Formats: sequence, structure tokens, C-alpha cells
Amino acid sequence: MDGNGAPLRCLFGVRVLDLTQFEAGPSCTEALAWLGAEVVKVENPKGGEPGRTSFAGPPNSPDSYYFFEFNANKKSVTIDLKSERGRALVKELAKKADVMIENMAPGTIERLGLGYEAIRALNPGIVYAQVKGFGEGSPYEHNLAFDMIAQACGGTMSITGEPDGPPIKPGPSLGDTGTGMLMAISILGALYERRATGQGRRLQVAMQDAMLHYIRFAFQTQAATGKPAGRVGSKSGSTVAPSGLYPCAPGGPNDYVYVFARQRDHWDRLLKVLGREDLIGDPRYATPAARAEREAEVNAMVADWTKRRDKHEAMRVIGAAGVPAGAVLDTMELMNEPNFEERGILQVAEHPSGPFKMPSWPVRFDGKPPLLRPAPLLGQHKEEVLSEWLGLGAADIADLERDGVI
Amino acid sequence: MDGNGAPLRCLFGVRVLDLTQFEAGPSCTEALAWLGAEVVKVENPKGGEPGRTSFAGPPNSPDSYYFFEFNANKKSVTIDLKSERGRALVKELAKKADVMIENMAPGTIERLGLGYEAIRALNPGIVYAQVKGFGEGSPYEHNLAFDMIAQACGGTMSITGEPDGPPIKPGPSLGDTGTGMLMAISILGALYERRATGQGRRLQVAMQDAMLHYIRFAFQTQAATGKPAGRVGSKSGSTVAPSGLYPCAPGGPNDYVYVFARQRDHWDRLLKVLGREDLIGDPRYATPAARAEREAEVNAMVADWTKRRDKHEAMRVIGAAGVPAGAVLDTMELMNEPNFEERGILQVAEHPSGPFKMPSWPVRFDGKPPLLRPAPLLGQHKEEVLSEWLGLGAADIADLERDGVI
Repeated sequence: MDGNGAPLRCLFGVRVLDLTQFEAGPSCTEALAWLGAEVVKVENPKGGEPGRTSFAGPPNSPDSYYFFEFNANKKSVTIDLKSERGRALVKELAKKADVMIENMAPGTIERLGLGYEAIRALNPGIVYAQVKGFGEGSPYEHNLAFDMIAQACGGTMSITGEPDGPPIKPGPSLGDTGTGMLMAISILGALYERRATGQGRRLQVAMQDAMLHYIRFAFQTQAATGKPAGRVGSKSGSTVAPSGLYPCAPGGPNDYVYVFARQRDHWDRLLKVLGREDLIGDPRYATPAARAEREAEVNAMVADWTKRRDKHEAMRVIGAAGVPAGAVLDTMELMNEPNFEERGILQVAEHPSGPFKMPSWPVRFDGKPPLLRPAPLLGQHKEEVLSEWLGLGAADIADLERDGVI
Repeated sequence: MDGNGAPLRCLFGVRVLDLTQFEAGPSCTEALAWLGAEVVKVENPKGGEPGRTSFAGPPNSPDSYYFFEFNANKKSVTIDLKSERGRALVKELAKKADVMIENMAPGTIERLGLGYEAIRALNPGIVYAQVKGFGEGSPYEHNLAFDMIAQACGGTMSITGEPDGPPIKPGPSLGDTGTGMLMAISILGALYERRATGQGRRLQVAMQDAMLHYIRFAFQTQAATGKPAGRVGSKSGSTVAPSGLYPCAPGGPNDYVYVFARQRDHWDRLLKVLGREDLIGDPRYATPAARAEREAEVNAMVADWTKRRDKHEAMRVIGAAGVPAGAVLDTMELMNEPNFEERGILQVAEHPSGPFKMPSWPVRFDGKPPLLRPAPLLGQHKEEVLSEWLGLGAADIADLERDGVI
């Protein structure tokens, strides 16, 4: 019985040596772990990767909620990379790995003697992946970056906000997880190829570069207008009415419903909902362009109806009429929605520090998302991995522990 | 000579039957096409998929810039799904495909007789993928959705905007491309498994569900505070100073630089840049929490320096000092940056309607991103695909054309 998740073995037998930290790298390797790869985190014996402790966690837990979220279904091994024996151990593991991945500050992995050329010499079939803030060959390739730096330099902030306001950081951590997803796709492509050719690949992605992939709608806007894509608040970016957020009762900070009626039939259906069948076919409102010219009037018509309903009712009624509509839901509303748990989109990790409900991989395989297993404790799989991958015995491991290598 | 892109064959031999439209589906299949899969779009003979014509394009082009962006490296075949012979032809193609994918309105593919059960009966090894707005089993599973509906219902809008302002739609089309990337990862996992087992998979993703994957940072904030994650403008979401956008000369709408100095050494380095070495070690500013208490003062100190530089200089100087910093770049600045073209992050598609510069797949394989080939003209590969996949000859094809089936 696996409840609302299915234990996937799509990547059964694939070994991932994971030297990543925080989110861009860990979100990538977690995607591989959901699919059944054996992902082994290599962590500093003194406290582990910084994502464990940089944010808040449950009482008495050594690890943060943040760490739980981005490290589900993985294993953890502690190795001191400052020690020569530790680095030698990583090289031995790399010989047995199918994938090695890191997202350290620029130049760090090479200084450790664990760069691409060194690892490839030991294992020519390895898929070696690196996530950085800026691309090799960029004027900023030596610079540090976090999610928000990538979002500033990658264009996402310039297209987010009110038309007359400053740039806004999009709430989603696209610089991190958005980049991690593109690397996961690339690793999977390289693994597929490797089954046929036996050859490895060097993969590199920069968080700034990855942002361009997610703002292609804005690039087409620019191509069409000849001007940089601007900020449009909550509108869809095109000249359509109705298109945007409409206020709902009782007027709280997220009491809004999105309504978008571009197509003729959607507009006609919306008029029925609003009790304005008299306007169906009226040429003053017949096309998106005609309605956009009367945008204030059209918006008032919709808002007059929505503000007398709560957002859930507004979404239910407008959506059921066949018009695209969506209530603005906050994180608490999402977390407390039973339907997400029933469908396995939210699952509960049975972590030693207590149960923790969190988003799982949202794609369903034959009806169920992958099964959530809790993030590992620091070094939890040390013996298991060193034994299975390298054949080390209890005495070898005790020796490494005594010397502070693991 | 392939210039700044490499022709990848990672997915050589993988056949994808692509019945998707607009962005969520096409962004997914385009990822597979970049990696070398043979992606065949099945399109309506009367105008093709709506993404071709729903947006602006170059003069005299039948296709939009939008279509160019999301359909690179693919093939196009026209088939009339309203005709019985057309649907039979799709079934024949499905027998030869490794992957079939669709993102039509709820229930449409089943009404066409091309749903999962029907196709699986013909080809048990197929990976059958569906992208919808809402999940099967959700109260809204029959509802229509676009990117912004998914972003409203998936939480991304609730965490984007100013603390005292309304929700804002993030500029990136995360509801579409963000969802497409998760499906691409899942398809690749299923294909890897299939090489070992020969078994297919049914994959389903909902755009609303996919949004939860990208706002996990907000869920950890909620777990830590017990309250829904709020809106924080351009801050990083934590109580850190300096952390946010600072105004630069000459004061245009995107003249800002992001500066983030949480770590002690980053703050000390920033003080040197600002010419305030006198404050290094000063306990009033020594920790992120101490600085957050004096946020207005700290912000004024940084802004006083940034507003006397342009954003490029500010980023260059602060970044080179070892402090995370990023200028807000708009789409025009990104498109005109030669470095992106040199590195193959932007490439030029030699489309029959003229050259079009656009973002390529941003991950580099052994030094280069995949080679960009232009999006197909409507039906461009009709003869090629029907001949290679089904063995049809010129007479068969002429017959299907005459009857309006293809």
C-alpha cells in the first residue's frame, strides 16, 4: 500500500553523485530521485549542505523545511572535501556514478581537483553537470548569484509589476527551480543517449541564461512591437478585455478571480453569467479589440458581478459556464485543500522530526504521482552507499570516521 | 559548420506524435526536439494549430513569432481530425510512435476516439502524455485554462507584488512552459524505463498542480511562520538587508540593480565598495538581523552609491567585489547582448520568412547549446513523414490530399 503515491523505478539503477546545495542543483537531482534514480548527496560532515540550516525547521529538527522540500527521496553521505582522503573517496564514487552534478561557486570544484577533466579521465562515460549563475564565457562568469540575481539579469523582473511601478521579483523561485528543471531534462537526454553510445557528456547551464527560456512570450511581444516588453500588472499581456483580476467579497488581500474571455463564445457565455444576455451580439462588444477600447466599462461590468461573490463561487460559476476563470489561491488555501492530498499532489513525508506535508512531483504516472520519501538525515546512508558502491567494510568505514574523513 | 549550436542526437530515433497547441504542450515537445527526437506536429489543414495565427508575425509570414519560438526543430503534418480517415491516419501514426502527447480542452481527445485506452490498445509500449489546466479528479477538471488561470489558482500570483498591493501575474509564462518542462522530464523518465521494460506509461499533468512545484520556497515560509506566504515586492523573502532593487542612473523604468548581502564577508566587501570601510565590524550592522532592524538606513547607504552609477557599472563593480549583484535587464537589452549570441544562448532561425533571432535551449552539451532549426511551415513534412512512418507512396498521398484528409 503506497497510498496516494507510486514508487517509480523509471531510472532504476541510475547512480547520481550529487554535490549540489540550496535549490537550483537540489531541485534537479530531486526530479531524478522522484523518477527512481539513486541520488547520493555528498555533504560536509560539519552541518551538511547549507540548505539544511539556512532556514527554519520544525522544533528539535536539525534540518529546515526548505531542505525537506528539495531533497526528498535522496540519500546522504558525509565526506570532508577539505581532506585529501575525502577527495579521493569522491573520485572513487565518481568512477561508479552515471551522473555527477555540482553547483558550487565559480571555480570551486576545479580547485578541489574534481572538475570535469579530472572526473572524465576516471570515468569517460559520466554525465557531468554544472549549474552556475552566469555562463562560461559571459562577462560575469566569475560572479556569485542567487535566484533573485538571475531573475534580475535574466529579464523576469523587467516584465513583472504594474505599468507605472518598479520591477517586481516574481514570487516563484524560477532562477533556482526553473534552471534545475532544464538541467534535469538535459541529463535525462544525455542518459538516454549514453545507453546507446556509452559516451558521457559535459552539461552546463547558467541561471541567467535559463531565464530567457521562461520569458519567450515577452520576446514575441517585443518582436511584434519593436519595443522591450513592459509590465502589465495582472493582465495577460495582450489587448484583450476582460483579461485580469477582478475583486471578490470579502475584499481580503487575495480575494480576486482571474477572468479571461477573448474568444467570441467565451464572451457570450460570460454575458449570460453576468445577466447581460442583452449585449450578446452587440457590435460595441463583439470583438476583443472593440471590448479593449471600452476596457473600463467592460471591467466594471465584470467587477460589479464578482465583488458580490466570494472568489470560490465566482470561479465555480464562471468556470462551469465554459469561460476560463481562476480564483487567486494563497499557499495556506492550497496546503489545506483536501483534493490535492487525495490526488497525491500534496503528500506527507514521515520524517523523523514529524510528519511534513509538501508538494510532490506533480506529474501522474498511470494515475499516481511518484511516492514521497522524506529527505535524508545528514550522513544517514554513509555505510550503505560506501558499502554498495565501493565495497568498503565496517572496519574501513570506522577508520574513515575516526579520522574525520566521513 | 554549425556555428554556435550543436546538432544533438541524444534522442535519435525517438518518434513523438505531437497533437499539442499554444505553449504548455509545444514547449514540452520542443525540449524533446532540441535533444534530437523526431517531433511531428499533427495540425488542422485549415490554418494549423492556433499558435500559428493567434499572435503577430513578420510581414508576409503565415506564422507568428510565438509559433517560431515554441516549435523549433519540429516537423509538421496536416491531418483533418474531423474526418474519419484523418483519425484513422493518426491511429496508424500512433502505432509507430514512441510518445503521443496532447493538450486539448478536457474530453476532446477522447471524443475523437484517440484517448489513452484507444491508443494503448494499438500500441501498449507508447508513452501517452496529457497536459490539462486542472487535474483529473479535481473539482475543476472540466474547466478551461490558460497560463494566467493556472497562475491564479496555483498560488504564483498570491506571492507576487508589493506587500500593500494586489496580486500580480509573474511575467514568465510559468503556467505554460513551467508545466511543459515537468512533463518533458516525466516523458524522458518513461522513455528511459521503456528501453528496459518495453512498457508504456500514461502521464498526466495539470497546470494548476505544476505551479506548486515552483513556489516551494513560499511553502517553507508558510511552514516557518504559520501564515500564508505574502507578497514582498522585490525582496528575497527573508529578513535580510541589503536585499532588493536599488535605483540607478539615469532613472529609467528598468534602471535598477539587485544587491543581496546576507553573509558576513559579502557585507564587508560591499562596505568597501561603498567607501564605508569604517563600518566593517561595527556591531550595529554585523548580522543580517541587525541590518534588517536598520533597513531604511542600510538601503539608503546602498542607494546613495547606486543612484550615481548606471546599472551596468553598478553590477560590474559590486559583482567583481564578490557580492551577489544583478542589473535588471529588459528583453531588448537581452536580445541585443552579443555575448548571448556568441555562446549560442540566442541563435538565428533561418525561416523562409526571414531570419529570426530567439532563445535556444540554454543548456550546453560539451560546450554548445543544441542547434536551432526553424519551426516548420504548415504541412511541410507531410510526404516525408507519411512515407517514412507509414510507407505511403505518392499516389496514396495525392489521394488523401484530394479528399481533404491531409
